[in-house]
Amino acid sequence: MVRHLVTIDDLTESEIESIFSLTDVFLAEMSRPDKPHRISGRNTLANDFILATLFYEASTRTRFSFESAMHRLGGHVLSSADPKTTSAAKGETIADTIRVLENYADVIVVRHPCEGAVRVAAEYADVPIINAGDGGHEHPTQTLCDLYTLRREKGTLKNLNVMLWGDLKNGRTVHSLVYGLARFGARIIPQPAEGFGLPEHVTRRLLRDYNCVPVAKDDLQEVTEGQFPVDVVYVTPDKPHQRSLFSDVKEKGADVLRVRLPHNALAKIDACYVTRLQKERLPASASEGAEPYPVVDLEFLKDRRYRQSSVMHPLPRVDELGYDIDTDARAVYFKQASYGVPVRMALIAALLNIKPEILGATPPQKKHFVYSRQTVQCTNPRCVTALESEQRYLSPKYLVVVEDAHLVSRCVYCEHETVPEFVGRSSTKKYEPNHMRWDNVPEDIMLFQDEASAIAAAFQPYKQKIKV
Amino acid sequence: MVRHLVTIDDLTESEIESIFSLTDVFLAEMSRPDKPHRISGRNTLANDFILATLFYEASTRTRFSFESAMHRLGGHVLSSADPKTTSAAKGETIADTIRVLENYADVIVVRHPCEGAVRVAAEYADVPIINAGDGGHEHPTQTLCDLYTLRREKGTLKNLNVMLWGDLKNGRTVHSLVYGLARFGARIIPQPAEGFGLPEHVTRRLLRDYNCVPVAKDDLQEVTEGQFPVDVVYVTPDKPHQRSLFSDVKEKGADVLRVRLPHNALAKIDACYVTRLQKERLPASASEGAEPYPVVDLEFLKDRRYRQSSVMHPLPRVDELGYDIDTDARAVYFKQASYGVPVRMALIAALLNIKPEILGATPPQKKHFVYSRQTVQCTNPRCVTALESEQRYLSPKYLVVVEDAHLVSRCVYCEHETVPEFVGRSSTKKYEPNHMRWDNVPEDIMLFQDEASAIAAAFQPYKQKIKV
Amino acid sequence: MVRHLVTIDDLTESEIESIFSLTDVFLAEMSRPDKPHRISGRNTLANDFILATLFYEASTRTRFSFESAMHRLGGHVLSSADPKTTSAAKGETIADTIRVLENYADVIVVRHPCEGAVRVAAEYADVPIINAGDGGHEHPTQTLCDLYTLRREKGTLKNLNVMLWGDLKNGRTVHSLVYGLARFGARIIPQPAEGFGLPEHVTRRLLRDYNCVPVAKDDLQEVTEGQFPVDVVYVTPDKPHQRSLFSDVKEKGADVLRVRLPHNALAKIDACYVTRLQKERLPASASEGAEPYPVVDLEFLKDRRYRQSSVMHPLPRVDELGYDIDTDARAVYFKQASYGVPVRMALIAALLNIKPEILGATPPQKKHFVYSRQTVQCTNPRCVTALESEQRYLSPKYLVVVEDAHLVSRCVYCEHETVPEFVGRSSTKKYEPNHMRWDNVPEDIMLFQDEASAIAAAFQPYKQKIKV
Repeated sequence: MVRHLVTIDDLTESEIESIFSLTDVFLAEMSRPDKPHRISGRNTLANDFILATLFYEASTRTRFSFESAMHRLGGHVLSSADPKTTSAAKGETIADTIRVLENYADVIVVRHPCEGAVRVAAEYADVPIINAGDGGHEHPTQTLCDLYTLRREKGTLKNLNVMLWGDLKNGRTVHSLVYGLARFGARIIPQPAEGFGLPEHVTRRLLRDYNCVPVAKDDLQEVTEGQFPVDVVYVTPDKPHQRSLFSDVKEKGADVLRVRLPHNALAKIDACYVTRLQKERLPASASEGAEPYPVVDLEFLKDRRYRQSSVMHPLPRVDELGYDIDTDARAVYFKQASYGVPVRMALIAALLNIKPEILGATPPQKKHFVYSRQTVQCTNPRCVTALESEQRYLSPKYLVVVEDAHLVSRCVYCEHETVPEFVGRSSTKKYEPNHMRWDNVPEDIMLFQDEASAIAAAFQPYKQKIKV
Repeated sequence: MVRHLVTIDDLTESEIESIFSLTDVFLAEMSRPDKPHRISGRNTLANDFILATLFYEASTRTRFSFESAMHRLGGHVLSSADPKTTSAAKGETIADTIRVLENYADVIVVRHPCEGAVRVAAEYADVPIINAGDGGHEHPTQTLCDLYTLRREKGTLKNLNVMLWGDLKNGRTVHSLVYGLARFGARIIPQPAEGFGLPEHVTRRLLRDYNCVPVAKDDLQEVTEGQFPVDVVYVTPDKPHQRSLFSDVKEKGADVLRVRLPHNALAKIDACYVTRLQKERLPASASEGAEPYPVVDLEFLKDRRYRQSSVMHPLPRVDELGYDIDTDARAVYFKQASYGVPVRMALIAALLNIKPEILGATPPQKKHFVYSRQTVQCTNPRCVTALESEQRYLSPKYLVVVEDAHLVSRCVYCEHETVPEFVGRSSTKKYEPNHMRWDNVPEDIMLFQDEASAIAAAFQPYKQKIKV
Repeated sequence: MVRHLVTIDDLTESEIESIFSLTDVFLAEMSRPDKPHRISGRNTLANDFILATLFYEASTRTRFSFESAMHRLGGHVLSSADPKTTSAAKGETIADTIRVLENYADVIVVRHPCEGAVRVAAEYADVPIINAGDGGHEHPTQTLCDLYTLRREKGTLKNLNVMLWGDLKNGRTVHSLVYGLARFGARIIPQPAEGFGLPEHVTRRLLRDYNCVPVAKDDLQEVTEGQFPVDVVYVTPDKPHQRSLFSDVKEKGADVLRVRLPHNALAKIDACYVTRLQKERLPASASEGAEPYPVVDLEFLKDRRYRQSSVMHPLPRVDELGYDIDTDARAVYFKQASYGVPVRMALIAALLNIKPEILGATPPQKKHFVYSRQTVQCTNPRCVTALESEQRYLSPKYLVVVEDAHLVSRCVYCEHETVPEFVGRSSTKKYEPNHMRWDNVPEDIMLFQDEASAIAAAFQPYKQKIKV
C-alpha cells in the first residue's frame, strides 16, 4: 500500500519520531562543518528515483526545498513551477493529471489553491503524494520542519510553552502545527492579531481529536509571573486516561475544564512562532490593517519571559518580525528553513521506502465512520468538491464525528466540519433534529442538511412533525 | 548528418519498427514489476548528454514525459516551460534561439504555436530537434506513442480497425496518427463531431502520399454486421502494386474506388481513439457546443462491436470520455500515457546515436521537387512563414506535388497545400492556367499565385491571352 | 571568505586570466571534435553541488548557459525562471530570499530588474552569488565571455581595436565590457547610435578608475587610413606610471589628454561589438527609431578596415545585425554564445573552490572610503535602495570618490555616482560647498545633498554664510 502525506494526521507520532531520527542521521553525516544545521553534498539513496513538483500556486521557496532534498538524496527532479503551464488550463481534472504524472515520476509534490485538492490527488495516485500546501487547509511538511526545529533547539516537545503570533485564522501552517504540538504534548499559547484567532473548527478539533484541554484566563494568572495577556492556553495530558487526573473542575459549558498547572509553568516562553497576515486568503473587500498587526522585535523580546525564546517564522515575513532580531541568537527562522532540507530528505526516503523501517504498511486508521451519500454537502466554498471540473467524477465523503449533543460531518477532503440540521436512519425511514447524544454512529445513519432533504429522501418525521 | 523528428514522415517504417523494438527492450528491462507498462529506475545510457525543452506554448504533461525519459536514460535536462520567459519576448527569431541553444544542449525538444516553426528550428540546428507540437500541424511523438500502444495492445497494426472520435479537424495528434495508421496498414474509420471532420488536405494526402483507398458508405454495409454509421473508411493495401488488385470499380469522381473488404471485416472495432474539442484552435467567435459533441462512455461501449475495443485518448480529456470507463479493462489511455516514457527514451537514444543501429544516416528522401521562388506564398495564416520576425531571414520553400489535373505547392514548413492559379516555365517565359496533367515536374517550372504575379515576372500568356 | 561575482571588478586581472586558462583546459578536454568551441559530455567536478538560478526577470538563454555549465561539471540545478513564482510576490525582501535559498543551494545565480540588487544578495549570502544581470547595471559573466572570445579569436586583448556599436547607453553588457577592455589594454572605439552614447558616469569612471586616456577626434586622423568617423577612442597605457610618458599635451579641460598613437594604429578594426536597442530600459514615452539605428551587415563590412574584424553580439539581435553575415567567417556571435558554457564552468568551479588555485582568499580591495550616513541619498531611481521593501533593512552606503574639484558619492549597490552639494567634517560641525580639491578623504567627512540637510544635522557654515 502506498503511503501519502496530505495532512499531518497521515503519520503516527512514532512515524514522525522515526522521520526525525533519520533527519538527525542525515544532518550528522552530511552537514557543512561550519553550518551544522545545513545539509551539503549528496548521497546516492534516491539515485533511481524521480520526484515531480506540481505547483498550481506560485512558490519558489517550498519547491526548492523539496527539489534540493531530492538532489541531496541523489535523485532527479521534474519541475512544474507555474500554474498556467499545467493542463488544468485545458480543463483537466486533478485525478487525470495525477494518473498521467504517476507514469513520469516516483513521488509527486502537489500545491493547490483549493482545500482538499491534494487528498483527491492521493486517492488517485499509486505513487506517494506529498501536500506542499492546499489552500488554507494544511501544509504538513512545514509542520514537520517546525516540530523538528523545536525538538532540535529545545531537546523535547513535551510541556514546551509555544506562543503563536499573528494570523492564526488563515495560516494553514498554523493549523497543522497546533495539531502537531498537541500530539507531542507542547502547550499552545495563541496570541492572535485582533480578529485573526484560531478558527472554531480548529479549537474544537484540538479538544475532541487530540485530547487537548483549554486553560482559561482566570486559571492562568496564578501560574505565570506577573501579567499574562492571553485568553487561553491549550494543554495536553500525557495520556488520555490522565485527563481526569489532570483536570480539576468541570464547568457547565462542558468544554471548559479547570486545570491546575505547575507553579511558574508559563513563566518562560520556549518559542514564539510568528506568522504574517495571509493577505492572499482575505476577501478582496477586507480593509487590511484596520487593526494594528502585532510586531515581534527586539523591543518586544526584552521582557524576561522571552529571554530564551526561540523566535520562529515559516517565512516569508513582511512587517510582523523586526529585522533587528536577525542577528540575535534567539532568531532561528533561517535555521528553521535550513532544517527543511534534511526533514524532507527523511520524508522522501521514507515514502519511497528507500529507508524501509520508517513507515508502517498502512496509514493511521480513521476512528470515524465514513458517510458518502449526497444528502449533505460540504459547506466550504474553497473545498475541492466545489470545483465544477472535479464534480465530474468526485463523489463527496464525510467522516461522521460525534460531538456531545449532535453529529458533525467532516469533509474527507478539506476537513471542514458542518452540522447537519437533521439526522435519520435508513432502516426506519424516520428523521429528527440533530440534537441527540450518540455513543456510536449506526451504520444506517442518514444526514440531512435541512428538512427538505429529508422529505425529498422520502423520510418521515420521528414521532411527530418537527417544528422548525 | 543530424537526424530530427519534426513530422512522422521523418522516420521510415523500418526506423519506427526499430524504435518500437528498443521500446520493448526498455520495458522488458526497466518496468515496475507491478505495473509492466511503466518504466522505473534509470540506466546510464545518456549520462553524458543534456536535453533541453523549449516550450513556447504551455504544457506540463508533454514536457514531463520527455524530461522523465531523459532522466530514465541517465541524462540531464534544461527546462523552459513558459512562453514569456524566452528571448522571443525581446524579438529573437527561432533560428537565432536554436543556434544559441544548440551550444547548451545535445538534443532540443520544441513546442511552438506556429505551424512549421519546428521545421525552421531543425533547419538551423546541428543537434537533433524533436517536435513536441507545432500549432495544428503535427505532434509526432504522440503518434509514436499511439502506434506503439496499438501494437502493444493488439500485437499488430495491420488491418486493425481504428475508429477516430471527436475533433478530427483541429487535432494535430490526429493528423500525424492517420498518416501513421495508413503507413502501417491499419484501417481508419473517422467518426468526427458534426463539422469537425478530417481536413481535405489530410484526406487528399492520405490518398496521394500513403496509397490509402477510401471505402465509401455504400460498400460498407455488406462488410459490417448491422448498421454502421460512418461515411467512409480508409484502407491501405499492403504494397502499392496491390492497389489495382484491391480496388474493384473506378468511378468517374476519380478519387473514389470501389473496394471489396473481407466479410465481417468491420464487425469489430479494435480501438476507439477519442479526442477533445481543440478549443484553443477555434476562432474566438465560434459558438462552441452548437452541435452536441460525441461522448464515449460505458453506455456507448455496450454495443457488441466495441466488446474488445481499446479506448484511447491523447489526453487531457474534458467531457468527451466518460469517467465511468476509467476502471473498465478496455480503457488504455493512462497506459498510453505511460508508454510515452519508454517510446521517448528509445527515440532520444536513437537521435543521440547512443543506440547506433536504429536510424539511417540520412532522413527519408522527399519524392517531390523543391521550389523556392517568391512567386507563390503559403496561404496558411498560422504558418511560421507568416511571422514578421521570421521573414527577416526565412525564404519560402515548397514541394511541388502532382495532382491529377494540376500542380500543388506544399509549404515545406507547415505542409499546408495551395493550388497556384497559373504555372509557367522559365525557359519559355510563358504562363498558362494550372489545369494541365503532369507526369513529371520540369526543373524550370514557375508557379504563380495569380495572373498578376506572372505578368509581374515578365511572363507572356501561352498561345493566347487567358480569359480569367 | 566567500567570493562573489557581482561586478567585473570583483575579480582581479590575474584571477580573470586564471579563469580563462581553466576555460582553455575545459575546452581542450571536453569539446566536440567537429565543433572545437563547443563543450560536450560531462565531468564530475561539481557532483556534490547544487546551483540555483533565481531570475526575477525573464531569460532562457542566460539561465540555460549557467545550468548547462553546471550539468557539464556534473552538478545539479534548481531552476527559477519566472518572476511571478517567487516569494517577492508575497512581499519578501532580497535579503530574506537569499538567506533561505542559501540553505538549498551551494551557489546562486541572480537576475533582477533593479540596479544593485545582486550586491544586496551577495551581502547577505554565505554561498557564492553570481550576477546574471541587474537592471542597467552589470552583466559580468557576459563580459567574461566577451573578453574570452576576443582573447581566443585574437590571441590577446592588448592594443586590440574594439569598436562598440549601437545602444551604449542602456546596455549593461557594454558597461561591464568597457571596464574589462580598459583593464586588459584593449582600445575602445565607441560608435553609438545617435543619442545612445556611453553614459558620462561610465566614461568618467573609465578615466578615473581604469587609467584610460581618451584620444580626441583631432588626434585620430593621423593614425588612421582615411576618414575615421568616431569622436573619441579610449586607450589604456600598460601601467599607471606610463601615463605621463604616454600622454603628450594636457589641455585645460583637465580631462582630455593629447596622445600620439603609433602610425596606422587604428587602420584595422579587430572586433565590432554590436548591440541591440535596449527597448525594455527606455521610458515608455520614448519615440523609438526617431533616429535610424545603425545596422552592421555584409555591405557595411566591405570596408577594408573590417576585413578581419570579428563581429560580436551579446544576442539576442533584432534588426541591427544583418542575417547575411551569419555564414561569413567573421561572424563569431554564435561561437561567443558557445564559449559561455566553458567560461561559466570555470567561474563556477572557481567560486565553489573545486579548483582552489583560481581565486584569492579575499576580493580585490576597494580603494575608496566607505560612507554610510543618511545625509545623502542615491539619486538613481532604479537603484535597489529605492525599493520600499528593501528599505526595511538596508542602510545606504557610498564610496567617496575624489574627483579633481569635488567629492563624489558612489552608491555601493548600483554604482551610480552623485555629487553632493555640500560637504563638512563632524569634528568641526562646519559645512561648505563641495568645491574643494582633496588628496585624501578625512574619516570624519560629512556629505550633504543640499544645504538644508547640513543645517538639519546642526552644522554651521564654514567661515561665513554660503550664498546659494
